Amino acid sequence: MPAPTPKPASPADALAPAAPVICTVDIVLLTLVDAELQVALLQRDREPFQGALALPGGYIHPQEDDSAWDAAARVLRDKAGLPNPYLEQLATFSGPGRDPRGWSLSVAYCALVPAAELAAPTAGPLVLRPVARLPSLPFDHRAIIDTAVARVRTKSQYSSLPVYLCGQVFTLPQLQAVYEAVLGEPVNKVSFRRKMDELAMLEPVEGAMTTGGAHRPAQLWRLRKPFERRLSLSERGLGVGG
Amino acid sequence: MPAPTPKPASPADALAPAAPVICTVDIVLLTLVDAELQVALLQRDREPFQGALALPGGYIHPQEDDSAWDAAARVLRDKAGLPNPYLEQLATFSGPGRDPRGWSLSVAYCALVPAAELAAPTAGPLVLRPVARLPSLPFDHRAIIDTAVARVRTKSQYSSLPVYLCGQVFTLPQLQAVYEAVLGEPVNKVSFRRKMDELAMLEPVEGAMTTGGAHRPAQLWRLRKPFERRLSLSERGLGVGG
Repeated sequence: MPAPTPKPASPADALAPAAPVICTVDIVLLTLVDAELQVALLQRDREPFQGALALPGGYIHPQEDDSAWDAAARVLRDKAGLPNPYLEQLATFSGPGRDPRGWSLSVAYCALVPAAELAAPTAGPLVLRPVARLPSLPFDHRAIIDTAVARVRTKSQYSSLPVYLCGQVFTLPQLQAVYEAVLGEPVNKVSFRRKMDELAMLEPVEGAMTTGGAHRPAQLWRLRKPFERRLSLSERGLGVGG
Repeated sequence: MPAPTPKPASPADALAPAAPVICTVDIVLLTLVDAELQVALLQRDREPFQGALALPGGYIHPQEDDSAWDAAARVLRDKAGLPNPYLEQLATFSGPGRDPRGWSLSVAYCALVPAAELAAPTAGPLVLRPVARLPSLPFDHRAIIDTAVARVRTKSQYSSLPVYLCGQVFTLPQLQAVYEAVLGEPVNKVSFRRKMDELAMLEPVEGAMTTGGAHRPAQLWRLRKPFERRLSLSERGLGVGG
């Protein structure tokens, strides 16, 4: 038998356009409710999986979208009433089995959003569910959410990411509680304060203190301007899980 | 003037399939030659950009590929003669302007490969170019390579990733040189050794020492089995750039 002939370096397939692929985006909006990481879902109003809760998503529209990111921003604006969240590309999920309509590819994005924004009157009929207790989800949306949560946990070890879950101003104990909720583990107060110094992303709100409550007033902090749309990253993690 | 009517939560567009999107994969194969990070390119043998050096890539074939990853593995096998590299999804690049044929989307993958494998007789006509001195590249391949290099540098701070650039066995000074080449900066020997202990990914090759050369023989090491296809991650970086 002759040895198999190696394929040429540039097979003829490079000429032929491939069969169509269904191209969509899906968005994982994560938020904190009752110190629990929750994900925003929408009820699907048509087939496939009509009536099921699923991630907000939709087709890429080559006529109007400048990129997959653009498609995700449009979907969020139109279906969830969210004009401008911090949207990060998560990963692309693809294959013949994930969508009953055919071979599909979905570019998934992830955003951390304060719960108050998701409840805003402009926001669409989003439904929040704890990531630890998800309902049965269509497509591979469970895997997409799992990937998003894992990414957010890893990244929160080293960055300012969880601050996007806070409101405009917050106390340091509030922020620490947010980190702990995202990481799913307690964080040492001293190393947390050191980490916040190192990230250099916060500034005190001049003259603003919390009022009321049983505790003495605490300083309010906010994100510094340069970090409103850009993560602050640190060399070292918070040491959780290490 | 009436206030703008908010769009319904489920616009009619969810029904209509979108215009076709060109779906491709591109692969960034990085290697070390002369202590320099280099990328593998192929000369394009047809339009667009016939004759130009570009990243290995090609269309997704829904009829035969089980995923975009699968398409990337097939392209590498067929066009570069590489059967089984450690292939990680990098990011998806998309938009109307990146390919003259139309609105396109490319799922980019990245792999670190020992230079010897790229030079193997089974490997296709790959051409290596230093990432620091790239020729002019078609599409957005320059941006894809820049993204890959940034990702590899960040990840190498915290993981076993650069080991994939080594051969089967290596000395610790050789491995340190590989880390330094990837990171583009010198690494402190003591913290490097501590990091390798922490990653717990290496094992000594029993009775194997380097021979010859001006130095006394050094212990040879190899990757432990569980880490041949899985990164070892550490809590803390190497402290480079910190």
